[in-house]
Amino acid sequence: MQAVILAAGLGKRIKNFSKDKPKGLLKIAGKEIIYRNLKILKNCGIEEFIIITNPKFKQAYENFLSQNKFKYKLILNHFPEKGNGYSLYLAKDFVSEKFVLLMSDHLYEEGFIKNALNKEGLIIDKKGFYINQEEAVKVKVENQKVKDIGKNLNSYYGFDTGFFILNSEIFKIAEKLVKEKEVVELSEIVKEAKIKVSEVSGYFWLDIDTPKDVKLAKKYLIKRSIKKEGDGWVSKLINRKVSTKLSEYLVDYLTPNQITLLNFLIGIFSVITVWISIPLAGVLYQISSIIDGVDGEIARASMQTSKLGGYIDSVLDRFIDFLFLLALACVINPASTFWVIIAFAMFGSVMVSYSTERYKASFFEDIYQVIPQMKYLPGKRDERIFIIMIFCLINKILELFIFLAILTNLRVLLTLLLAWRKNSAKKGGEKTYG
Amino acid sequence: MQAVILAAGLGKRIKNFSKDKPKGLLKIAGKEIIYRNLKILKNCGIEEFIIITNPKFKQAYENFLSQNKFKYKLILNHFPEKGNGYSLYLAKDFVSEKFVLLMSDHLYEEGFIKNALNKEGLIIDKKGFYINQEEAVKVKVENQKVKDIGKNLNSYYGFDTGFFILNSEIFKIAEKLVKEKEVVELSEIVKEAKIKVSEVSGYFWLDIDTPKDVKLAKKYLIKRSIKKEGDGWVSKLINRKVSTKLSEYLVDYLTPNQITLLNFLIGIFSVITVWISIPLAGVLYQISSIIDGVDGEIARASMQTSKLGGYIDSVLDRFIDFLFLLALACVINPASTFWVIIAFAMFGSVMVSYSTERYKASFFEDIYQVIPQMKYLPGKRDERIFIIMIFCLINKILELFIFLAILTNLRVLLTLLLAWRKNSAKKGGEKTYG
Repeated sequence: MQAVILAAGLGKRIKNFSKDKPKGLLKIAGKEIIYRNLKILKNCGIEEFIIITNPKFKQAYENFLSQNKFKYKLILNHFPEKGNGYSLYLAKDFVSEKFVLLMSDHLYEEGFIKNALNKEGLIIDKKGFYINQEEAVKVKVENQKVKDIGKNLNSYYGFDTGFFILNSEIFKIAEKLVKEKEVVELSEIVKEAKIKVSEVSGYFWLDIDTPKDVKLAKKYLIKRSIKKEGDGWVSKLINRKVSTKLSEYLVDYLTPNQITLLNFLIGIFSVITVWISIPLAGVLYQISSIIDGVDGEIARASMQTSKLGGYIDSVLDRFIDFLFLLALACVINPASTFWVIIAFAMFGSVMVSYSTERYKASFFEDIYQVIPQMKYLPGKRDERIFIIMIFCLINKILELFIFLAILTNLRVLLTLLLAWRKNSAKKGGEKTYG
Repeated sequence: MQAVILAAGLGKRIKNFSKDKPKGLLKIAGKEIIYRNLKILKNCGIEEFIIITNPKFKQAYENFLSQNKFKYKLILNHFPEKGNGYSLYLAKDFVSEKFVLLMSDHLYEEGFIKNALNKEGLIIDKKGFYINQEEAVKVKVENQKVKDIGKNLNSYYGFDTGFFILNSEIFKIAEKLVKEKEVVELSEIVKEAKIKVSEVSGYFWLDIDTPKDVKLAKKYLIKRSIKKEGDGWVSKLINRKVSTKLSEYLVDYLTPNQITLLNFLIGIFSVITVWISIPLAGVLYQISSIIDGVDGEIARASMQTSKLGGYIDSVLDRFIDFLFLLALACVINPASTFWVIIAFAMFGSVMVSYSTERYKASFFEDIYQVIPQMKYLPGKRDERIFIIMIFCLINKILELFIFLAILTNLRVLLTLLLAWRKNSAKKGGEKTYG
């Protein structure tokens, strides 16, 4: 199947956004609007993209499309003022049978596109959670076909999402109208053709029209990019609230890997600070714990996730956790015997991660997804770091080590127990023995 | 596709093996000969098994087949003395078109079966590495068809593996011969039918006929069950040589999980021994390291591998490694400052495993397979334990900790570096950020 993207519009309403750059190439949370749609469509098996734009944007789109290795045809609309219905008409000789039609300046989340691809005709949204309903284009429906379409319908059935599954039939009506009138809007063609209406409601989609829309879309993309598995209550109550704010700001300036590095440096800095002020070090450590969420959020929100990034991030976290505890131990300079407890605390802190990651390496499943009780086991990194900060603030370091030694090792044993209970029944599987 | 297994023979030649139990149910390296073949065939998509046996073995086979949830038809041959050709004939009304034919007392390795299933007719082996070539049945071939078949052919083309891919045509010849003669051997039918000959050479397969064959097969299965990934030079040169011998013996008595537990207890015992005699403790620790290979070997050789077993085994190993080092540290009772080095040694020892397992959790690939240089990085568990033993024997514990602290942490950093070099080019992938 092919996809036709209408991108000839001149997007005047977006302020402080360069005039000679089309709206579709506007970056939201680190990636162009059109990149997001094309990427999702490509993952859903759409091979070819037919983009109708105006000569002014030709170069920009060509650079973008070839850089990102999309298979594309670029069709120039020399008369954008003739309306987006005319733009669609220009695609008529390039599409075969069934095709997807969408607007270059509409942002859709993956779930919306995946659902819409199984539907037919004009996709409408009855709920319109995220859009400005006043401004939105409404659709009136009569026995499952478009009856009327426009911004100011008194009674309507749903909102026009600007996403269509059409077949080449539509071009007959398009041609007819283009011959009759000077300016032809897509809505007129749709209305004239009485195309079928399908519903995909409740997902995030937005016609990016104003800077406010950009902000809203970015906010949503970051919020959705939180990875809940393995988040403890500290992450839920504190870290994520702050990290998402940070991500919203940083996503336009830094890559996930840069954040990971920054986060590592702050961690090292917090370790060094232990020798200056333990309470301050504790706070810095907690700050690094908050920032630890940002790289992942930005990676997912900007569609830049990488396994390597996740891998290195995790290993570096273990180093920081170890070094911070070691620094504390050095500064309080305990009796030699007490080091046994310190050793248990350090070991347990690494083993909490080892016991969950090793599970994934064996079962190729996330232990938090397959063993729900894991979510309620205390001792996750965000919780440990928060506890460490508290003990640092009240300067009870020996007590901290005793607490950690018990908490972490207990958690690991419980993890083993839960894994045993879940899987001891199962048989077979691949070779994972040491 | 169906598989027909001839299991009516009376297997007299196997000594000290209960008379009222068929040869196919003889356990080799912990699993019945027929279980191994049926399991592999099932994994290759063969759904139904038609087993021809004699009334004496009916109960035994029924119990076995239902216990192991194989879909089967059991056909009774009331005249086993009429030969295995007659047994095949009895299957004629139960097979449709193409089917696999094999002997209940032949053991085949997975590779052989997988290859043979893509061939046609009688499968022969030109090399016959593992069989007793004197005793073996030879096949003479003329334009790709069976010319002659028997034990005492002066010139021959290959060895009869007892494995066939046939179609129902064969039953016409079988019927003809059965009507002509009192005793009909499969070889006569095959010769008369002039069936096609295909070659699958060099794999392990064996007609289990004598106790010697049982021993040979067991030896091979254990040897093949060594998991090389992650084996250091100590495993290669010492541990595996001993562990395979142990496995050969223990496979008939203990389950993999029992070995894992035993191994854990020996580990704990070696930890306690540190307070009695450090050199002795070092030796015990090395012994536990050898036994650490046995559970995996037995699991694979007896087709009982379990992800859970591998998982628990690994986590317990980390505990033993940690506790042994901690015990050493306690006994030598070093200055408080020296504990910093001890901590690094302990941390590094866990991180060696963490950094490889976390890679698998991210990439769902074994780092040793995708990054060959990893094989040459020193510091794997078998090497660490061997080194620890040496230092224990010469009683240089402080030096040991310094050495381990450097070796292990250096290895982890190199692992990160190699992972970076391999993957920094790649893009995309799934969400694995913390």
